[in-house]
Amino acid sequence: MSEPWTWHGGDLSAAKRRFGSGGDPWIDLSTGINPNPWPDTERVDVDWRRLPERGAIAGLEAVAASCFGVAARHVCAVPGTEIGLRLVGALIGGEARYAAPGYRTHGEMIPAAMATGPDAIGRHGGSIILANPNNPDGRTVTPATLRDLLASRSGAGWLLVDEAFADVDPALSLAPAVGDDARLILFRSFGKFFGLAGVRLGFVLGPEPFLRDLRALLGAWPVSAAAVAIGAAAYADADWIAATRRRLPKQAAALDALLRGAGYMPVGACPLFRLVETADARALFERLARRAILTRPFADQPQWLRFGLPGDDAAFLRLKAALADG
Amino acid sequence: MSEPWTWHGGDLSAAKRRFGSGGDPWIDLSTGINPNPWPDTERVDVDWRRLPERGAIAGLEAVAASCFGVAARHVCAVPGTEIGLRLVGALIGGEARYAAPGYRTHGEMIPAAMATGPDAIGRHGGSIILANPNNPDGRTVTPATLRDLLASRSGAGWLLVDEAFADVDPALSLAPAVGDDARLILFRSFGKFFGLAGVRLGFVLGPEPFLRDLRALLGAWPVSAAAVAIGAAAYADADWIAATRRRLPKQAAALDALLRGAGYMPVGACPLFRLVETADARALFERLARRAILTRPFADQPQWLRFGLPGDDAAFLRLKAALADG
Repeated sequence: MSEPWTWHGGDLSAAKRRFGSGGDPWIDLSTGINPNPWPDTERVDVDWRRLPERGAIAGLEAVAASCFGVAARHVCAVPGTEIGLRLVGALIGGEARYAAPGYRTHGEMIPAAMATGPDAIGRHGGSIILANPNNPDGRTVTPATLRDLLASRSGAGWLLVDEAFADVDPALSLAPAVGDDARLILFRSFGKFFGLAGVRLGFVLGPEPFLRDLRALLGAWPVSAAAVAIGAAAYADADWIAATRRRLPKQAAALDALLRGAGYMPVGACPLFRLVETADARALFERLARRAILTRPFADQPQWLRFGLPGDDAAFLRLKAALADG
Repeated sequence: MSEPWTWHGGDLSAAKRRFGSGGDPWIDLSTGINPNPWPDTERVDVDWRRLPERGAIAGLEAVAASCFGVAARHVCAVPGTEIGLRLVGALIGGEARYAAPGYRTHGEMIPAAMATGPDAIGRHGGSIILANPNNPDGRTVTPATLRDLLASRSGAGWLLVDEAFADVDPALSLAPAVGDDARLILFRSFGKFFGLAGVRLGFVLGPEPFLRDLRALLGAWPVSAAAVAIGAAAYADADWIAATRRRLPKQAAALDALLRGAGYMPVGACPLFRLVETADARALFERLARRAILTRPFADQPQWLRFGLPGDDAAFLRLKAALADG
């Protein structure tokens, strides 16, 4: 399969071109983006006219740092985790292994990086790239295990942990281990947990000298006025964050029940998506797409289908009906 | 001087901390950003929830390409010209010269780059970095001269032209010379001419194989949903663009008259700013700042002061009064 939806999730236009858009409005379950976003973007005042000031960007980094549980000087805002991964990879280079299965970009960010199974990755020297929770299988690793991996890095090796989906369960984060003496770099994403992927905002956490090199690649105004204003307001909204941490696991449990009821065995410990392994994954993808529900197939793993969270009862019911109507 | 306003323009907060903000509202003349921006941002529908789709980003690049006068496949959207300059510099590396005086980032984007006077730059091999029109002195070079410079690049050398301020006078642009066989890379900025620097949107124009390498550094979603939506609408607004190309030179002429009336000799052929050379530049900066007017001084050229365009009659009158009140 070379269709756009096997590359990344979220390309609804391509799906509409292929499967039509004359019937029900499309439901996009092809990403791990929270379908119930932080709701107050309209109330945030964005000044498009001016360059974001360094004080405002530092303020955003400080609010986010407080949310991550790390000192602000270890946090650098980037215009999306995607570009953050790639620039950090370009800065680090060298010998590296990335955990597979995993997120596509992890295999592209360092030219010489090779794929390794998640359990064998610690046996290798050099740098290590993995996600926690992992995408697409939702696998999680304990911080203790990751600290052992970090301790085993020597010389030029770094431990890179993509925590794009870690906001739901902050206890998973290795943020407390970030410091100037640790060869540890973390990636955080604004768009997924807060459901605002179009803002393009992410963060790189690491030693201050490394972040200086990264800032030299980014220049003076790395993120937009909207990213500064919306990001600062959302990370400061402790009530919404707490409520969302309670709500997402319930929504994921409901999705699990729905998928099990249809005869599938969903896996994953990240409440923003579930992975189903089934011999008919390709047929299931097509069947759902013909009912205007976009899920996430994988070209190299044709037995997989990933489901994002339906955003409301109507979407749950449409998914349920589409799965039942075999 | 190590004050923030000698680094880049636009840091009004730092000026307020130093000079106070109790009196008149501040007038920011410290940048070359159009003070009368494209006015319809509020009417553009921005979907913050979804990742910008590749088709939408390609659409933005196509509209911008048509405006620049180049095929869309030679245009790559970036989250601001600043990061575009730095990533292109990282990709090119090698031996390079940058024209001085010039924009600060030109001296930072390639580690080994050395400063050279603008007239001597063609004598050197390797890559060449310059701006047309230049910033801060507004100096312009004819496309014919630049084509000679391009023809003299051999082997690993590139001609890099920062056209961040070229929108006012499209005849200055080297865009028609961009192609797969030309060792030519251009930079365009959305924020300056359209007066919307907070959007963070710029473009790199160059050979398609080079843009492939750049896209590999940027990843799948290099610009925000707002940059896609606002940028596509603004570049398609031919009436506003034409009216702004007529209006800006008139505003610049009015600024010239005002500065001459105060005894200064403004220079520059770019209508978005004027440079004044005067022995009392530092005192003039302080005098204006005490009247809540921020201009742009230069740490390494203490005799210079750059003025952006006042946005309306009231700003013109306040600048006039502040200059007269010696």
